[in-house]
Amino acid sequence: MFPTATYITRRQKLKSEVKNGILLFPGNGESSMNYKDNWYPFRQDSSFLYYTGVNNIPNIYFLIDIENDKEILFGDDPTPEEMVWTGAVTPLSILAEKSGIAEVKSMKELPAYIKQQQQKGNPIHFLPPYRSETTNELSNLLNIPVGVIEKNKSDAFIKAVVKQRVIKTSEEIKELNKAVNITAAMHTHAIKNTRPGKTEKEIAGELQAIAIGGGGNISFPIILTKNGQYLHNHATQAVIEEGDIVLCDCGAETAMNYAGDMTRTFPAGKRFSSLQKDVYNIVLNAHNSAIAALKPGILFRDIHLLACTKLTEGLKAMGLMKGDVQEAVAVGAHTLFFQCGLGHMMGMDVHDMENLGESYVGYTDDLKKSTAFGLKSLRLGKALEAGNVLTVEPGIYFNPFLIDSWKTQKKYTDFVNYDEVEKFKDFGGIRVEEDLLITASGSELLGEPLVKTPEDIEELKNV
Amino acid sequence: MFPTATYITRRQKLKSEVKNGILLFPGNGESSMNYKDNWYPFRQDSSFLYYTGVNNIPNIYFLIDIENDKEILFGDDPTPEEMVWTGAVTPLSILAEKSGIAEVKSMKELPAYIKQQQQKGNPIHFLPPYRSETTNELSNLLNIPVGVIEKNKSDAFIKAVVKQRVIKTSEEIKELNKAVNITAAMHTHAIKNTRPGKTEKEIAGELQAIAIGGGGNISFPIILTKNGQYLHNHATQAVIEEGDIVLCDCGAETAMNYAGDMTRTFPAGKRFSSLQKDVYNIVLNAHNSAIAALKPGILFRDIHLLACTKLTEGLKAMGLMKGDVQEAVAVGAHTLFFQCGLGHMMGMDVHDMENLGESYVGYTDDLKKSTAFGLKSLRLGKALEAGNVLTVEPGIYFNPFLIDSWKTQKKYTDFVNYDEVEKFKDFGGIRVEEDLLITASGSELLGEPLVKTPEDIEELKNV
Repeated sequence: MFPTATYITRRQKLKSEVKNGILLFPGNGESSMNYKDNWYPFRQDSSFLYYTGVNNIPNIYFLIDIENDKEILFGDDPTPEEMVWTGAVTPLSILAEKSGIAEVKSMKELPAYIKQQQQKGNPIHFLPPYRSETTNELSNLLNIPVGVIEKNKSDAFIKAVVKQRVIKTSEEIKELNKAVNITAAMHTHAIKNTRPGKTEKEIAGELQAIAIGGGGNISFPIILTKNGQYLHNHATQAVIEEGDIVLCDCGAETAMNYAGDMTRTFPAGKRFSSLQKDVYNIVLNAHNSAIAALKPGILFRDIHLLACTKLTEGLKAMGLMKGDVQEAVAVGAHTLFFQCGLGHMMGMDVHDMENLGESYVGYTDDLKKSTAFGLKSLRLGKALEAGNVLTVEPGIYFNPFLIDSWKTQKKYTDFVNYDEVEKFKDFGGIRVEEDLLITASGSELLGEPLVKTPEDIEELKNV
Repeated sequence: MFPTATYITRRQKLKSEVKNGILLFPGNGESSMNYKDNWYPFRQDSSFLYYTGVNNIPNIYFLIDIENDKEILFGDDPTPEEMVWTGAVTPLSILAEKSGIAEVKSMKELPAYIKQQQQKGNPIHFLPPYRSETTNELSNLLNIPVGVIEKNKSDAFIKAVVKQRVIKTSEEIKELNKAVNITAAMHTHAIKNTRPGKTEKEIAGELQAIAIGGGGNISFPIILTKNGQYLHNHATQAVIEEGDIVLCDCGAETAMNYAGDMTRTFPAGKRFSSLQKDVYNIVLNAHNSAIAALKPGILFRDIHLLACTKLTEGLKAMGLMKGDVQEAVAVGAHTLFFQCGLGHMMGMDVHDMENLGESYVGYTDDLKKSTAFGLKSLRLGKALEAGNVLTVEPGIYFNPFLIDSWKTQKKYTDFVNYDEVEKFKDFGGIRVEEDLLITASGSELLGEPLVKTPEDIEELKNV
């Protein structure tokens, strides 16, 4: 936990933004895998953690009652008989004290408390839930049908939380640096230990061990694949072979649930082929150009388009694209090779606050997300502010299904040399990703630098 | 997948048992962690897998229409644009063919199909769901309120599935042996690589890497702890110290989702203390005695009570218990040290079919589960049959909360020497667990033998 003052200050700011009603934070419960009591690793909700710091206790609720100036943690300590199974659990009263929360009540007192406030006409603010359990719990507690819970989320509450969480404090940046350093250690291991004959899952398992050993766990399912052309292709039992390039996109989250998220692409064997190096350098140039342009005030959508331009220039130089580069990017021809967005906010969630809605986190009332292929997958478009933390992750992906489909449809034939592209249908995909903090004057890399050029990667592989 | 004939035969047997109506198998969806699209590893439902063999495809349903003699897989293949994210996915038509399922329909055709059968008065049988998503989906599909879904589960369907899955075929036993061997490799690693100065999570991470490298994942959250006195104490960031005994209870599941589940307890340093060895040997004796008594026809409840007797004899010899051993076990005095059950069925679920209900899987209409402390945690009580696969896992747990609580209450003072027990409040816990197949004449150990005596464990640690 951070010092008590951190949580008190965060809640004061939040109250002064929302101004009225009850702010309800449903804690997560356990998540069932193949039967009720076989659980996935417990993950507390990030906003709950942000405002309480109380971690690793399932099935508790927190509430800020602005009307009556109260803060209450609802939950129940285990009995000695329950401690046969759970072991020693820190009492909620001690956790509440560390968080500066004055009151602890039993969970069974929550429904009456809520009902009383509803009867007084006080609004009960809640954030949009992302687990069915929470939706069902809110439905029972607030007496709102399951189907309209989402519609009843509180805009004022969401906006206040986003405004606060989107600017990282120095305490948080320290924790994010820790997460990125564990993430970098995972990548160093992957680059050194990937070799022909191993399966993707063998290496992915080794990386997860590093994340768990770091005190937390992985921040999202590990992408480690010789088929990097598919954006969210998780590790499989496929055997890595000489000549493959392996794309590894992974991250750790710390014990305090701050995330890292990086990508490197490297050869299965000792060296990249010359063609692999050429494509890699196009991606790396787009990556470096985008980072150089980061600063407060600039639209991240424009950084994205800058990266798209750099990718298109490179692909044109290789003969895969043709025509005017700006026009090609404007119509979206480059999305045959780069189908997604350049990056996203990162924090306690690897896609920070994605559950609160991209329209709040990545866009504004004036700047709405595009629905065009490519841009519709750009999670962040709005103007950057000092204190934002985000990823920069351009890539080139030769997706044979998309190539076949668009070639048949004669899409973008003014800008794409399909005859040349055909030769790359078994090339794979390349992505380079790092995590950056927006500073007053530009940006700062999070974590210790990790090998990034083809030459440095080869050197690390051949130590 | 097993050969097509396996699935066809399984379904034929099932149909001949249930005889009428529609058998509905809701496949699992993805499970959200800290926002909607950040997923835990996908795990298909085990009964769905058992009857279809179709794995790793979320959000599909399977249905056996006994009335109209049809078998239909409901689901949708990704579009080329969706394959940008998912990559190459085997078409459902090919998976259905491998499983011997004649028809594939789009998910959007399912509601009308169900409605039509309901209108004809055909019963729609379903198993009790264990995820809220599935409960909500069934509620919508069948037009039954969420709150009464559980009550509307099909007894006939449950009983037929249990009857079939509880007897393992030779194909399944081969897969279970594979799971247990990966599990044994995890334990060998843990015994060899645990040493003072490492955290519990570091070692747990290394074990999970072995499970993932084996092609599947862990079959349940890893218990690796110097506080083995707490039954489900998962690995934490606690540092292991010289003199600690470490209890490791873990298992792998294979790519086909068959589970292993073993426990070993070993010293953090090079040797057990003499006292640790004494307690270990009591547990080991109970473990071996229980295994020697396994055979078809015997109640597993009686095997459990036999193990309790052996534990009590040993604790009495050490001066921790006193009085008549049989009386002590009959009143439950031993549950101060052994608070749980001796074992459970194992198969595609590590607690096999736990979601279907212990009253069906572990007990019968005539043999109900006891509500007494200790016996109420015995998941399996009924008579064993050849083909059953189960765990045998006695233990001795010195739980300081329970000792304090019962001492204050003066519980079982005729049988417990609390003055002696006081000295063990920081001892920890010891468990020994293996996986067994019930044969025609007795039982057979699954997997290659793993070190089990204190001497063999010390030898492995000191290679």
